Amino acid sequence: MKVAELWTPALLVDAGALEHNLATMAAALPGPRLRPHVKAHKTTALATMQAGHGHRAFTCATTREVEGMVAAGLGDDLLLANEVLDARRLGALADRARITVGVDSAETVEAAAAGGVREVLVDVNVGLPRCGCAPEDAGRIADLARSAGLAVRGVMGYEGHLMLVADADQRRTMTADCMALLSRAAADVGGEIVSAGGTGTYADNTVATEIQAGSYALMDTAYGAVGLPFRQALSVLGTVVSASPPSSEIQPPWVVVDVGLKSLGMDHGNPTVPGATVWFCSDEHTTFAPDEPRSVGVGDRVRVLPAHVDPTVALHAAMHLVDGDGDDAEVVETWPVDLRGW
Amino acid sequence: MKVAELWTPALLVDAGALEHNLATMAAALPGPRLRPHVKAHKTTALATMQAGHGHRAFTCATTREVEGMVAAGLGDDLLLANEVLDARRLGALADRARITVGVDSAETVEAAAAGGVREVLVDVNVGLPRCGCAPEDAGRIADLARSAGLAVRGVMGYEGHLMLVADADQRRTMTADCMALLSRAAADVGGEIVSAGGTGTYADNTVATEIQAGSYALMDTAYGAVGLPFRQALSVLGTVVSASPPSSEIQPPWVVVDVGLKSLGMDHGNPTVPGATVWFCSDEHTTFAPDEPRSVGVGDRVRVLPAHVDPTVALHAAMHLVDGDGDDAEVVETWPVDLRGW
Repeated sequence: MKVAELWTPALLVDAGALEHNLATMAAALPGPRLRPHVKAHKTTALATMQAGHGHRAFTCATTREVEGMVAAGLGDDLLLANEVLDARRLGALADRARITVGVDSAETVEAAAAGGVREVLVDVNVGLPRCGCAPEDAGRIADLARSAGLAVRGVMGYEGHLMLVADADQRRTMTADCMALLSRAAADVGGEIVSAGGTGTYADNTVATEIQAGSYALMDTAYGAVGLPFRQALSVLGTVVSASPPSSEIQPPWVVVDVGLKSLGMDHGNPTVPGATVWFCSDEHTTFAPDEPRSVGVGDRVRVLPAHVDPTVALHAAMHLVDGDGDDAEVVETWPVDLRGW
Repeated sequence: MKVAELWTPALLVDAGALEHNLATMAAALPGPRLRPHVKAHKTTALATMQAGHGHRAFTCATTREVEGMVAAGLGDDLLLANEVLDARRLGALADRARITVGVDSAETVEAAAAGGVREVLVDVNVGLPRCGCAPEDAGRIADLARSAGLAVRGVMGYEGHLMLVADADQRRTMTADCMALLSRAAADVGGEIVSAGGTGTYADNTVATEIQAGSYALMDTAYGAVGLPFRQALSVLGTVVSASPPSSEIQPPWVVVDVGLKSLGMDHGNPTVPGATVWFCSDEHTTFAPDEPRSVGVGDRVRVLPAHVDPTVALHAAMHLVDGDGDDAEVVETWPVDLRGW
């Protein structure tokens, strides 16, 4: 099948860029040094490729992601890097897979134990105002967990507020500050694991024993602006359905592609159309002005680049692995985005 | 089943608010004066309720929505208020349902005819830089359509740029200006239908023979700010999974609920948590500071109000109709969001 035959909008993955990204990361962080985060692609077929590059332990953000990874035979070592108040669905997997969950409070420790989960990491706040206990409280949480019969494998802490810091020196210094907090907690908690980092800090974080990067595989325009060695592999294919009336008083001429708010994650802003200026997105449309007026016409296919990969993927039921640019590019495989939902 | 038993995040619809909204709109625009837009809820069970309020003709934004409505027995008169370059899936429904599609160019006329669609509306640009031919070109497009063997039922034109204009007088004047353009086109095109409008202008648009409102049923905080007689019926239920460490230097205290970018449409900005200030959203989290510090704790349930209903709904596989507030509220019905995808 050719790209030209796909119904639009359609999520495309450039096979060459994906392979480059997976190989580049596997060279930098081989085997267990990377614990790929599946939330960025929500696709077990893609996780299987990551496993093929040597990474057998994965990070998940939702219970549904954990269940789907186990069902796909990728349950060697799954970390739910999030807190849950109901761990029964996780506990139900404990005989078929190795499941570890984050805890940062008495309530989440209790939920993990009650649900039948056996192993935890203590989640430590390293500066992002989100989940995680205070570094100085981590030892106490670990004790609570052990008292509840849970094995404590170590700590996790996510320096998420640093991922898009563009200045490399600044990012490195700030990452070191965050990881000093996590190291202190790790000393109090014990265990083998210090899990942290992401695509933005994978090369800066020298403290973590494993990095939780996910976006590196498919990338987006926000990460693309940070100067990382990964290529934009993800786009949303659309069909131009309308062009501005020749008489319009609004200038320059615009065209409308059938890629909109329901096929694009919008929290990082508008998508990018190469060779054009994007004006705005509607539910099922993006209006843009080509740099070369009237160079794009009704019926043309356009690849739209999302600003944020994770929520974009969550809007699609499938992604298409394609080989090359243009309408003649071959659709190599079609993968269900099978880890959606909760 | 009680709300407390739902897995989170979960899309909730307040049964009382929904009934109020449907009844209020049906009183203002009875029967065929309203052609409800299903893109705002993507749920045939909710469309069936709208039909029960007397509206048997519907508006759709995608081919998938049209197909799903036909499958649900709601195919009396479906308008795809959008341009398509491949109308074969629509044409395949022509023996089972009445299907009308928008056209605004020679290419879209040709696609409609080639795909086996029988009826069209000429889509006219009334000021929003998106789809639609120039008003003065509408007669020519109608002629093209008739030459291609298509029946032309009239015109459509969407004053989408006016939906969130808060000043009622200004909105009314601007709507009248847009509709003057559409009236001119209607005179040239012929036919019975002048289809236009939305939730923001449903009471202002006195030219359209039918209004395409959709958001009125469930509402969102953006429309809620415009002063319409509809109530917020939609929320996303979440569980508080973490609270800020007592020692945090970041103040005031915050909590984290498991509702994030993958369960909220974000193009209109952050969601609202009543009684709190929202700081930011992550993939699976919203961080917010309660007005009353520490009044919300780990394990509590919170209803998060999305800023934009349409893309929020598109992220969920189901919505739950609930009767009342609080954790004890009864889940009356659970509806599949069965019109997702394209």
